[in-house]
Amino acid sequence: MKRYAFGVDIGGTTVKLGFFDVDGNLLEKWEIPTVTENDGAAILPDVAESILGKMRERGVDAEDVAGVGVGAPGAIDSEGLLVGGAVNLGWGVFNVARVLSGYLGLPVKAANDANVAAFGEMWQGGGRGYSNLVAVTLGTGVGGGIIVNGKILTGATGAGGEIGHMHVEDTEQELCNCGHRGCLEQYGSATGVVRLARRHLERSSRESVLRHGALTAKAVFDALKEGDPLAEEIVKQFGEYLGKGLSLVAAVVNPEIFVIGGGVSRAGEILLAYIEPAFQKYVFGPCKNVRFALATLGNDAGIYGAAGLVLNGQMGAEGND
Amino acid sequence: MKRYAFGVDIGGTTVKLGFFDVDGNLLEKWEIPTVTENDGAAILPDVAESILGKMRERGVDAEDVAGVGVGAPGAIDSEGLLVGGAVNLGWGVFNVARVLSGYLGLPVKAANDANVAAFGEMWQGGGRGYSNLVAVTLGTGVGGGIIVNGKILTGATGAGGEIGHMHVEDTEQELCNCGHRGCLEQYGSATGVVRLARRHLERSSRESVLRHGALTAKAVFDALKEGDPLAEEIVKQFGEYLGKGLSLVAAVVNPEIFVIGGGVSRAGEILLAYIEPAFQKYVFGPCKNVRFALATLGNDAGIYGAAGLVLNGQMGAEGND
Repeated sequence: MKRYAFGVDIGGTTVKLGFFDVDGNLLEKWEIPTVTENDGAAILPDVAESILGKMRERGVDAEDVAGVGVGAPGAIDSEGLLVGGAVNLGWGVFNVARVLSGYLGLPVKAANDANVAAFGEMWQGGGRGYSNLVAVTLGTGVGGGIIVNGKILTGATGAGGEIGHMHVEDTEQELCNCGHRGCLEQYGSATGVVRLARRHLERSSRESVLRHGALTAKAVFDALKEGDPLAEEIVKQFGEYLGKGLSLVAAVVNPEIFVIGGGVSRAGEILLAYIEPAFQKYVFGPCKNVRFALATLGNDAGIYGAAGLVLNGQMGAEGND
Repeated sequence: MKRYAFGVDIGGTTVKLGFFDVDGNLLEKWEIPTVTENDGAAILPDVAESILGKMRERGVDAEDVAGVGVGAPGAIDSEGLLVGGAVNLGWGVFNVARVLSGYLGLPVKAANDANVAAFGEMWQGGGRGYSNLVAVTLGTGVGGGIIVNGKILTGATGAGGEIGHMHVEDTEQELCNCGHRGCLEQYGSATGVVRLARRHLERSSRESVLRHGALTAKAVFDALKEGDPLAEEIVKQFGEYLGKGLSLVAAVVNPEIFVIGGGVSRAGEILLAYIEPAFQKYVFGPCKNVRFALATLGNDAGIYGAAGLVLNGQMGAEGND
């Protein structure tokens, strides 16, 4: 009988691993370093060794394990193929699910890490109970993961939900990392808030606590909570861009809920108070009734979602199951 | 053995009906008037009578019929419920599939007409061979239908693919029909082209054939083909908006192909020559390799797609099957 599953979240510096029961309870989590040297050749063998070690340690047999889910950076198509490689890991193009399954002798499913995290939030996090969901990650960049009828929207080349690079501003002069100008990520990310803050500080002569100390996204939200008027201007503009961007997403996939996570979301509910009104200003009527919620799984969303891939019959690619 | 299916496309003035074999060949098509009086109470009984009449006429038994697919205006959720009614038909909220199935004694599936047309283009039209597709209808408005992994993306309230109401212009002063300003539909539709043309004619003193005769979308594209420079300016701007809008759609659902249909698409391949370059200017790198094609089924896309709903195990709602 299948009693357990593993969830693996491969990042550029560490690999997070989670051991779950089939009801989705996280029984144990741990990390191993991501060895990116030698084109990341050791990463999957290390993951396999760590999982097999954990199984020995706990006396778990292969027959007890439903499978292993993997989230990795980069576009992974519905067959488990890492379409364009993963620069951060040193990986080229190969089938992640198939290779890891070969090492483990267990079924493996793989998908893009942002999509996997979205699936985790739907399954056991801030989007629990919903099956049409958009997870938005406000971190260094703006990431997205889209779930339609309970399944990850992978897209033709694994780039479904890359909402950070939607064009939302025609007048932008600075380049986004992607080479275009005016991407949502240039305003709605942690670095985006800081950019907006810098502009407001330059253009305004208003006094602000933000003129003193390090200018970070956290500092801006802290200042907002202390009632700093310039911080409010900044966050209002930030919310305007996110609200506009998410209204575009809503017109395309018409979700039930947006689940907002990532480092910036640590600002808490106040964040939603600035995104939602802007969203309502732009959104098409029939897509209005969307809920906004904060993500609740934090850095564990990836391992939850990865385990969820194998426990919920996801469309992620399959190894030898 | 199931040998046939019917496809029904309910419009505000006529209902189009198609009789198909299970391989998707259209054997016969015909129309009946849409009787919208009395809250459209006669529409489904009329459809049922017409189908049952056709079966008698052709000696087709109920056992031979795989089912009846229906496309109707308005948001229809994945259970077949007409979520917000359909103003054009006089219909309130009810389950279209279930009611028609009751009249017919046959399985019925129902979905939004734009989504059904998108499905038709994927199944037997310009998107044949693709399973991740966005159909864009450039008519009086801009409509959209999204297919993900061969299934219609219905959305939480049946408004999936309502891409005409994505906000693409911050500086717009005129209102869209939806009550907002700057929707894609205000530029990318037949009426949108005419609006843009009017503005160009006002602002420029340039001579143009468009200063003479009726100003229609067709006139603009005809003038373009004759080398009229003002018409080229207009269509360039029109293509710019559509390219930008579709780049936003691509970042969300990452399709393999855009299939462009609707009245404006009668302009032909020249249309794509103005949309594609603008699209490439805005689109996120990993979503670049999208094909653009013209729709090929014209006004029959709806009946094809509707029949396809029942012949391809779509997610549209089911009646008594």
